[in-house]
Amino acid sequence: MPKRVYNFSPGPCTLPYEVLVETQSELVNYKDSGMSLVESSHRGRNYDAVHNETVGLVRELLEVPDEFAILFIQGGATLQFAMTALNLLAPTEKAGFLRSGHWANLAMKDARMYGNQYVAWNGAEENYFRLPSSDEVQVQPDTRYLHVTTNETIGGVRLYEWPDVGVPLVCDMSSDYFSRSIPWDLIDVAYGGAQKNLGPSGVALVIVRKSALDASPRELPTYLDYRVHLKSNSLFNTPAIFPIYVSGKVLKHYKRNGGVEEYRKVSITKSGHLYRAIDRSAGFYDCPIQGESRSRMNVVFRVPTDELQAKFLAEAEQEGFVNLKGHRSVGGMRASIYNSMPMEGAVQLADFMDHFRSSNS
Amino acid sequence: MPKRVYNFSPGPCTLPYEVLVETQSELVNYKDSGMSLVESSHRGRNYDAVHNETVGLVRELLEVPDEFAILFIQGGATLQFAMTALNLLAPTEKAGFLRSGHWANLAMKDARMYGNQYVAWNGAEENYFRLPSSDEVQVQPDTRYLHVTTNETIGGVRLYEWPDVGVPLVCDMSSDYFSRSIPWDLIDVAYGGAQKNLGPSGVALVIVRKSALDASPRELPTYLDYRVHLKSNSLFNTPAIFPIYVSGKVLKHYKRNGGVEEYRKVSITKSGHLYRAIDRSAGFYDCPIQGESRSRMNVVFRVPTDELQAKFLAEAEQEGFVNLKGHRSVGGMRASIYNSMPMEGAVQLADFMDHFRSSNS
Repeated sequence: MPKRVYNFSPGPCTLPYEVLVETQSELVNYKDSGMSLVESSHRGRNYDAVHNETVGLVRELLEVPDEFAILFIQGGATLQFAMTALNLLAPTEKAGFLRSGHWANLAMKDARMYGNQYVAWNGAEENYFRLPSSDEVQVQPDTRYLHVTTNETIGGVRLYEWPDVGVPLVCDMSSDYFSRSIPWDLIDVAYGGAQKNLGPSGVALVIVRKSALDASPRELPTYLDYRVHLKSNSLFNTPAIFPIYVSGKVLKHYKRNGGVEEYRKVSITKSGHLYRAIDRSAGFYDCPIQGESRSRMNVVFRVPTDELQAKFLAEAEQEGFVNLKGHRSVGGMRASIYNSMPMEGAVQLADFMDHFRSSNS
Repeated sequence: MPKRVYNFSPGPCTLPYEVLVETQSELVNYKDSGMSLVESSHRGRNYDAVHNETVGLVRELLEVPDEFAILFIQGGATLQFAMTALNLLAPTEKAGFLRSGHWANLAMKDARMYGNQYVAWNGAEENYFRLPSSDEVQVQPDTRYLHVTTNETIGGVRLYEWPDVGVPLVCDMSSDYFSRSIPWDLIDVAYGGAQKNLGPSGVALVIVRKSALDASPRELPTYLDYRVHLKSNSLFNTPAIFPIYVSGKVLKHYKRNGGVEEYRKVSITKSGHLYRAIDRSAGFYDCPIQGESRSRMNVVFRVPTDELQAKFLAEAEQEGFVNLKGHRSVGGMRASIYNSMPMEGAVQLADFMDHFRSSNS
């Protein structure tokens, strides 16, 4: 095994080592076809099998009911900020938003121009340090949907309770897809970029309730119309072959390892190692996020001074713990521990945190 | 070298063998970083170097003036059908279109809802069997831009004369990017999906005259706004790392082999082998495209009967010439011979065509 670091990047992020090795072995000559899969026609037998197997694994692992279509669309979650509103929200309708942080704010900004919107719960008033329970969410009459971000990658907060508030949810699940079960009864759309809990960057997984597309609120150009992707099984135009292909391998890896319920449990244990290192540090490490709102995917924390932060990051990197610097907008540290971060990575980072504290308190 | 076929797929298509081998060698542990490049942060040193080198190679190889921005945007050329109009065309303005075939028609369909449009030359009247010279193009007064498709992948026609008609051009160059020089003086936007003459699928290369974005015709959501991509060097959100990374390797390969002018000459020779096999066949092979309109990238032809076509495709595949079936909308055969198809592939296919004709006339 070549030198391998523990990569705590928030995305693109660490992938299962065995997936990378298998991808490498197939890269030049895929299944003895005399070409790479990335050179193969997206209408051909080999890619077709990969595409449909990947869609099938999404359906199986997330227990997606038949009433939902599973789509792969380029442009990341960012394009979905616009597409969800374009496809679901008429100019006279309104959508509610949970203002949970950076990504929710971007989603609001893009939806603004396609219909009315309002803030159903405002995390800004509390520095985005927690997410609400259902009964704190104020949904107005005649709301088309409530948009929620189930995990804020930058803020390090997670939505622990799915709002059951009488309107369909549109969910940005970019950073916790495949780490929790999804209550499909409550949902019209779940979407997320692949590059955190699914595979390489370059595609978003969008799961849409088909009946939500029956009444189209406006004429849409080809690529922005969910119905075009639905009718063509995401093959109207050339798909992002490599990210979908590798995502399929990641999903097979997930399945072998016990599926979403197992990753849910693992995420509690894995994040628990880091939160305990924080909580036992008597304030040396500070995590502003409290209780159930603490993300199981992105653990944010600070040390007492900027000097100690620089020292922490440098020594961590020397030990093979990389990409721990927090987002430039909030500073501090962030350990992103998506499904493919091995348990051992979290255990060793917690140990390192203990040692660093002892040496620097 | 493992078994390698000649892959005449219209896209995704054959890539340089050495690019695949190099990508394979780096896939698990990129430059001794302890991780794959596809696991690396798009804000990190390694990806940053790849991204900027790739942008620089585009600028160098296509001799792109400083007045133009070089963008990588997901969603293929299909999303650009909408984005070009969204970013350039006000509701009161009008755009002219060269109706050159399948792809031009799709571009027209998407632009329709954002401004006025008209047909400046209508290839439908001639079954899309040729493209016009400049003086056949009827541009109306006060036209914002003329949209042209420089090569129709399905129809097998190429635009041999860039229309110099007093209005800026918006060009879909998906299937002949990097095989011809571009008269930047005439152009506001050149765009194309990567998966033909650039790299793996999952990204479009969009080259935009910056001043064309000064007056925005409408409010735009984040991902659909060229100015967002321009200001962020295509890094507002997570880019499609793998396609951009491999495209960079392909461009380095192009540079080593003499650049765009060399590929232009090679495309004439390479397509010449196939067109001569057609022309010397005394009608056994029929190519409806005449003269300078014949594509140098997609050579379309038919045999006298459906039975012979099935036989041709089966025998060709046995000989290692694959993906020669024409698009379902037009039938027949199509040999796509983009930059990375070796000369030898075209020479051997021409020989095969001669033999097949002798055996079946």
